[in-house]
Amino acid sequence: MTPRLTERGRLIGVGVGPGDPELLTLKAVRALAGADVVAHFAKLGNRSNARQIVEQHLRADIEELPLLYPVTTEAPKTETLYRDAICRFYDESAAAIAQRLDAGRVVAVISEGDPLFYGSYMHLHVRLSERYPTEIVAGVTGMSGCWSAVGTPITQGDDVLVVLPATLPEEELERRFADTDAAVVMKLGRNLPKVRRALSRAGCLKRAIYVERGTTANAVAMPLTSKLDDVAPYFSMILLPGWEVRS
Amino acid sequence: MTPRLTERGRLIGVGVGPGDPELLTLKAVRALAGADVVAHFAKLGNRSNARQIVEQHLRADIEELPLLYPVTTEAPKTETLYRDAICRFYDESAAAIAQRLDAGRVVAVISEGDPLFYGSYMHLHVRLSERYPTEIVAGVTGMSGCWSAVGTPITQGDDVLVVLPATLPEEELERRFADTDAAVVMKLGRNLPKVRRALSRAGCLKRAIYVERGTTANAVAMPLTSKLDDVAPYFSMILLPGWEVRS
Repeated sequence: MTPRLTERGRLIGVGVGPGDPELLTLKAVRALAGADVVAHFAKLGNRSNARQIVEQHLRADIEELPLLYPVTTEAPKTETLYRDAICRFYDESAAAIAQRLDAGRVVAVISEGDPLFYGSYMHLHVRLSERYPTEIVAGVTGMSGCWSAVGTPITQGDDVLVVLPATLPEEELERRFADTDAAVVMKLGRNLPKVRRALSRAGCLKRAIYVERGTTANAVAMPLTSKLDDVAPYFSMILLPGWEVRS
Repeated sequence: MTPRLTERGRLIGVGVGPGDPELLTLKAVRALAGADVVAHFAKLGNRSNARQIVEQHLRADIEELPLLYPVTTEAPKTETLYRDAICRFYDESAAAIAQRLDAGRVVAVISEGDPLFYGSYMHLHVRLSERYPTEIVAGVTGMSGCWSAVGTPITQGDDVLVVLPATLPEEELERRFADTDAAVVMKLGRNLPKVRRALSRAGCLKRAIYVERGTTANAVAMPLTSKLDDVAPYFSMILLPGWEVRS
């Protein structure tokens, strides 16, 4: 592989959308076609979701740089040990990329959804974007993928939308549900029973829609009131549509 | 043009992204290639932004169906006359599309950004999706386009994000700014002075970023504190990044 004739490399944070490979943008496809290196985050022992999405667009001669989390995200984030390990991991990942950028390579870091919306890419962005030419390719978010798969209008007119991680305390979830037109709850997983109670106490349970694997071929969607168990994968979501049928 | 050999037509709500034609998805391109009719909203006397974005993907033989708002969105929305006129307009637009669907045509309704996120398409969706096979193609939202253009990480970890129309009362804006990690303010226009005051009183003014024409070639972005005038186009935005540099 011949490095490009640029003095310094270029970093591109590439959003690859919520899962359906067709929800890749033309810009993302072009970025991958022009990149010398493609970097992707994954948990140790897992395949990168972002890599699976773009698989058919990876040139045979592209260098792959897997960035493997040393610890699971299930560990309590307040622990100093966890924070130190994860910080070291981002430093080392940024260093591995910087080495390639210094050699004049174009490095595409692929991210599920949109790179700057709850994405790991931004840990590299803050470490590298002031030292190297950097570009972001916006992507379709997971939440857009979900409400589109379900065909549920989420917001209209003067609606307020709030995006809530399900990890928040139950009382805070309840307060925020009661104070918004529309809501999206992310990172559901084992927090489902808590979110359900908060929705119920805020008087919003009947409007809530549960979505699992939103933009994959085996998507599941149902009114939350029809979901009788407490089992939800980490990347499932709850949508609270703000828009009732009007005009 | 030969209508497809389907018994009934198919409706597709196609998100075309925030402005940059390269932020169109592969799925949107394919939907346009397979459509018999492309419908787009515009104000009377204006060109459709969505149409400009997809212009190079429109086949010469595609039927274009412009849907022209009879009244400006600047009129007070509480007025009964306005509501009646806009409701009649959506009814008539849906009828014009239904006529083509009944003839077995595939109709793509193109929307800037994402069709179900503050988009006009949803007024057609609620009128047609129960009677005709309907599909949504999610798109990159205007807000993703803006924070990507600026290179500003917006949310991370357990951040709460709130999306606020600038049309809300000043006190409500202030209260919501003070109660969130990250915020996006849409529909800025003449509401800029009010939003600035609300940000200031909530103690968030220094973090706010003003973005104009976010994903066009002539984008403007600056700290809101550096913007000295009160002139903002309707589609400008304010971003309040939730994510301070950490780990």
